[in-house]
Order: sequence, then C-alpha cells, then structure tokens
Amino acid sequence: MPAEVVAGPGDDAAVIAVDRLQGTRLLLTVDAMVEGVHFAAGSMTPRQIGRRSISVALSDIAAMGASPSWVLVSLGLGGKSAWPEENVLELARGMKQRLDELGGAIVGGNLSRCGSFFISVTAAGTCTGEPMRRSGARPGDLIVVTGSLGGARQGLELLAQGKVPADHTLALRHIDPPARIAEGLGLREFAHACIDVSDGLIQDLGHILEASGVGAVVETSAIPLPDADGAAGLREEDLLEAALAGGEDYELIAAVDPGEAGRLAQLEASTSTRFTAIGTFTSRAGELKGIDKNGIERNLSEAAGWDHFKSLSENSAPSRGR
Amino acid sequence: MPAEVVAGPGDDAAVIAVDRLQGTRLLLTVDAMVEGVHFAAGSMTPRQIGRRSISVALSDIAAMGASPSWVLVSLGLGGKSAWPEENVLELARGMKQRLDELGGAIVGGNLSRCGSFFISVTAAGTCTGEPMRRSGARPGDLIVVTGSLGGARQGLELLAQGKVPADHTLALRHIDPPARIAEGLGLREFAHACIDVSDGLIQDLGHILEASGVGAVVETSAIPLPDADGAAGLREEDLLEAALAGGEDYELIAAVDPGEAGRLAQLEASTSTRFTAIGTFTSRAGELKGIDKNGIERNLSEAAGWDHFKSLSENSAPSRGR
Repeated sequence: MPAEVVAGPGDDAAVIAVDRLQGTRLLLTVDAMVEGVHFAAGSMTPRQIGRRSISVALSDIAAMGASPSWVLVSLGLGGKSAWPEENVLELARGMKQRLDELGGAIVGGNLSRCGSFFISVTAAGTCTGEPMRRSGARPGDLIVVTGSLGGARQGLELLAQGKVPADHTLALRHIDPPARIAEGLGLREFAHACIDVSDGLIQDLGHILEASGVGAVVETSAIPLPDADGAAGLREEDLLEAALAGGEDYELIAAVDPGEAGRLAQLEASTSTRFTAIGTFTSRAGELKGIDKNGIERNLSEAAGWDHFKSLSENSAPSRGR
Repeated sequence: MPAEVVAGPGDDAAVIAVDRLQGTRLLLTVDAMVEGVHFAAGSMTPRQIGRRSISVALSDIAAMGASPSWVLVSLGLGGKSAWPEENVLELARGMKQRLDELGGAIVGGNLSRCGSFFISVTAAGTCTGEPMRRSGARPGDLIVVTGSLGGARQGLELLAQGKVPADHTLALRHIDPPARIAEGLGLREFAHACIDVSDGLIQDLGHILEASGVGAVVETSAIPLPDADGAAGLREEDLLEAALAGGEDYELIAAVDPGEAGRLAQLEASTSTRFTAIGTFTSRAGELKGIDKNGIERNLSEAAGWDHFKSLSENSAPSRGR
C-alpha cells in the first residue's frame, strides 16, 4: 500500500494522508465496464476483465500526465456469467496484476448483486505541477498519437464473429488495451493538450477542438493502423474507419509544438511506444478536416461515411470523462 | 464548485488542488444502488433515487466524522425502467439537492448502458485531524446510536407489499435515509469508534467488535425503534428484528466514554437528533450478547431468531466499506 494510505480497505472509507501529497494536483475519474455492452459474455476471462477495468480507468489518469495512486472498485455481480468465488478472486488478481504494472493500489470497494455484471473503477492520480487538459491546443501544434488506432474495435468485432482466437493481435487490442501512463508523464513536460481515445479519433479529437477553440486537419493516410499481418485480412479502409470512429483504443492524442520533435523522439525511445504526427491543429475553430493520400478533403465531423460504427459506438459510454 | 476543485466535469479527470487541503485527511468510499436489489423498479422517483444514492455514499463519510467534499457518479442506464433524458435530469437534480443539504459537489462521472439500472457513487471527504475508525472502541464505552433503527427494512417490505403509501413514515426511512454528517462531525470530537448501519445493528456492531477486539452487551429494549404511530400496525418484535438484522438505516453506532454524557447531550441539542445508549462494550472480545426487558440473555451473533432477514440482507452489499 502506498505510504500516504493511512487506511485501505476494511473501514467505512479509505484514509489518505494529504500532507504526503503536498505540491501535487489530485485527479479523480470513474469508468465502468458492463457485460454485453463493453464486452461479450464469455469473451474474456475474469482475470482479463479485471486487467481491462484498470487499464480503462487509468487511461484517463494517463491522458492528464499523472501517476495513478489509488483505486476504488464497485462491482455488480450477476448477468449471463456465473460468478463463483474463484472467478471473483481471479478478477481481483487481474486488477492487482495490472496495478502492479501501471502503479496504484486498491483502497476500497463495494460489492453488490446486479442483473447485469458491471465493474466501475474510480481512479485517483497525482501530478506534480499542472496536469494536461483538453483545452491547451494551439494552432500550428502537431496532432500526435501514440501506438495504433482502430485495432480495439476490429478486435471486438472479429471476436464476436468468431473469426479470430482470443490471443490474436487485434483481439488483444480489445481485451488488454494499454494505459499510456509513462507516455502521458513524458508528454506533460511539453504537450499543450491531451486526451485518451475512448470514443474514436473523430470524437476525442473533437473534444480537444471544442475545449481549445481550434480546428484540425488530419492526414488520414498518416493514422497509424495495426500491423497488416495482424489485420486478419481486413481492408485498410475498414481499419481506417475503426480508427476514426471505433474507439476504446486507449491511446493518447496530444497537441505538440513542432519544435518539440526532439523531446518526442526521446520519449519514443524511452517508452518504446510509437508517436505519430497525423496532422495539425488550425485556427479554424471546430473544423475537423481529413485529407486522404490523394489529397482529397472531407469534413470528418460531418462525413456520413464515418458513421459506420455509430450504432455500435452508442454501446460505449456516451459521456465518458464528464 | 468548492474552491479546491481546479477542474470539475468535462475533462478526463477532475483536478483538485491538494494545497487547499493541508492538515486534513482525505477519505474515499464507493457505494452502489441497483434496481431490483436495493430498491424495486417503480418504487422510487428518479429524484428520490438520486437523493438516496448520495445519502448512502455520504453515510460512510459521516461515520468517520468527516465533511463530504466531492462525488463521482457512475451510472448504468437500462433495466425495467425507461430512462428518458428528463428522468436522468431528475436523477441529477435529486443528487444535487441532497449534496446541497449535506455538502459536496459532483466533479465527474460516467454514463453507460446496462441491462440493469445501477448508480455507483464515489464520495470523497476531508477531515481535520484523525477520522473515527471502527477500531477504537474500549471496554466500558457506551454503545450509542443515532435516530431509530429498523424502519428502513420495514419500509422496504411494506412498500413491496403495497401496505403503505410512498409518503408513509417507514417508507420514507427506506426512500430517503439520513446521512448523519453533522452528528459524525460532532462525535469525532470525543467518540472512540464509529460505523454506519448499512447491514443491521448485529452485523455493523460486529464490525466494531472485530476491529476493536472488544465485546458488547446490548439491552434490546433500549434500541430506539420508529414511532409506534408510524409503524403501520407492526408488532414491536418485528421492528426489533428489523433493527437488529435489517440494515440500510444509515444511522451511526458510536463508542462513547460514559463520562462524555454532557457532550452527547450538547450534540443532541445542536443536531436535533436523538442519541441513545443501548448497551456497553465489554472486554469479552467478539462476544455480542443481547439482554431483553425480562433480563433474558441471548447470543446475538449466533441467534437463529435474528436470521429472519438473512435472505433479504444478502440483497444488499455483502462487503460494504471494504
């Protein structure tokens, strides 16, 4: 248990020594995973569900450039899957395993029966100095993304269709997503704004545009897609659509001054994570434009073609981070 | 929004200025309400559900003698009741109304679809000095409870059986429970241990016994029951059973030195809440004994007679506060 945790689970509330946190900002966020909504019954092991619940919640801490500290878990047991005690223990082991990888400890929780299985994770993080917000992007900044986009949605669909096994590259993008803690900590040194990709590039980049009062031009051919050999014979345009509108990749989108290319390269080296510039923020507030490899422009925020996944996207949290 | 909240809803996480909290302990707790488990579909209005979700979560903050500060809400919409936007707004209004009464502000949340309606509320509180724990009770301390016990369970049952209207005294004990914030703040000045009654007197008093390594003798006839004229013709022994094993009354149980009767009386006057001594903590670790008005003793922790509500109690969170 971290040194500032005076009391963890076992009393009415966890107790944190604030004097140990001096000079920091405290961050608080909550995220839920629901069976049949965020994952299909039987598609993930209890341990995988535990791991993923932590990744998803901590991704919001990563997006602000903070370190995860404490976690509270609200669990609703029931629904299609049986939850014998051993499965609950496996779920807890998965959470613990992921927290050991990313940082942070479970300090409290609640267990309830529920007609549907849900796991709601509240994560607290701390940050020395100011966290990255959605609101600091400036015209001329590069739009930089970590890793690759679109794999999580494609993995979810391929799994549901039984087209790939659970250990397939794309399936794992859905089952065991990243939480870019180290990348967020590094970006906070120089990035102007940041968000994590939970609802797809268009929607999450849109949140930065709205909060920062800027526009963006995205070179769609520059968007990093999952490796072709992991793509299960998918067409590149399907992967691109999944990247634009699919969501749940839990990569970071950051606004970075072009003059910071050196620090970006250093961060790429130290984290072994790819950072890709996919376009530029502009002064045309609210305008989100895509340019394809043939130089053809389209309005991404209105493009009906990108609504392919809309009905599916409504399954996921419509107001994450609010 | 409280002054220490640098950023509330609308970014990836809420941001709190820790330097504004200096000299305090930070408390964190989470509690969930599930339709069909903690309340019946259609038995409460959205506004009432919102109010109750806040009361239940803040009761844990009250039990430690802290002031509520920030709240995060994880909402799963679905199940038997429809959730048109107006109902969600009403739910939010109910939460806001209750927070205005008790203190605290919503700083973040998550919205998800779910096969069953759930609302999981994470509450943070702060406390100048050390919070009350479950572990400080001493042999010779009085067992003091606030308000009355058993009404919430009886109200739930009478409502389910259609025997009382929703504005009946007992129904309201279920629908709109207290969160004894002012009482907890006052008790923290002199009480040795405290807990809130979520699972019934036997179980919650048992948590104090376990954490403090003490025993207890309860004069069952001294347990404050709801007013007779509000009791819908119930027998006193039914009310007593509900008090012992029913739960969800959200009153406080505290360990108070008998020499503090004066401060207890002052607190009673300042809060207009009844404080009742119902017995004494003993040195017989783990022993929970009841003595009725005829002087007949029974082992409360083993008494089969008190298991009347057991199957119902399993509906509520089996590991609250853990």
